[in-house]
Amino acid sequence: MENLITTRITYQGGMHFVGESETRHLVHLDSAPNNLPSGGPTPMEVVLQAAAICSAMDVTTILNKRHKQIKAFDLEAQGTRQDKFPRIFTAIHIIYKVCGPNITKEEVEKAVRLSHDTYCSVINMLKPTVEVSFAVEVRSE
Amino acid sequence: MENLITTRITYQGGMHFVGESETRHLVHLDSAPNNLPSGGPTPMEVVLQAAAICSAMDVTTILNKRHKQIKAFDLEAQGTRQDKFPRIFTAIHIIYKVCGPNITKEEVEKAVRLSHDTYCSVINMLKPTVEVSFAVEVRSE
Repeated sequence: MENLITTRITYQGGMHFVGESETRHLVHLDSAPNNLPSGGPTPMEVVLQAAAICSAMDVTTILNKRHKQIKAFDLEAQGTRQDKFPRIFTAIHIIYKVCGPNITKEEVEKAVRLSHDTYCSVINMLKPTVEVSFAVEVRSE
Repeated sequence: MENLITTRITYQGGMHFVGESETRHLVHLDSAPNNLPSGGPTPMEVVLQAAAICSAMDVTTILNKRHKQIKAFDLEAQGTRQDKFPRIFTAIHIIYKVCGPNITKEEVEKAVRLSHDTYCSVINMLKPTVEVSFAVEVRSE
């Protein structure tokens, strides 16, 4: 496993920056005043997405190992920011909505706890400053 | 200022997920085995980019307030991950490369310190777990 990740970032004007990952993908981040068009999500928006998706990858891996068929997997994540600077998230709540035959709420909850406690790199970097909570919804189709 | 950020995420198969921000931008994240094509950067890659870009936005804002013209602004960010789970960053190093007339290395360094100490939401969420360091390069053209 690679232990060093490098990224290159180029300024586009305004508050618009583009990052190029080692995998050659481009990510545009921007921070425009409310209701004005922007070139991408804000840094805090992608951190929220990265936290939820990093954990969703763990849950997917665990369900795959148990040979469970995932028919759909949607998530909703909410981040609460403090008013004063630095405007960090004080809390993140992630709702995991899994659809698949023979998948139980209990096993998804167990997978989520394993992810939050042991595997998820993003959530485990945030945990000392951010209160992370979750809910699980499961349906068979 | 909005204190609650919400994002919706949809599973695309494999380890590929797409997040939709409140600003309606889509971000594709993926985690494919080495050298295989992937649908996007990994969650840890975008966290690294978000940390560097969040801080670059602060530096840009501070230089704008001082009526400094930024002709180019490139960054390089490196994240070092630990071997054992959770594979968090133990260190992040960001190189700020600013080009503009009448911009001094000292004022960029001061802006970066202000960002890291006071303003940057992403870096301030990571600081308890990640050692964040930086370097500044300035050229006039």
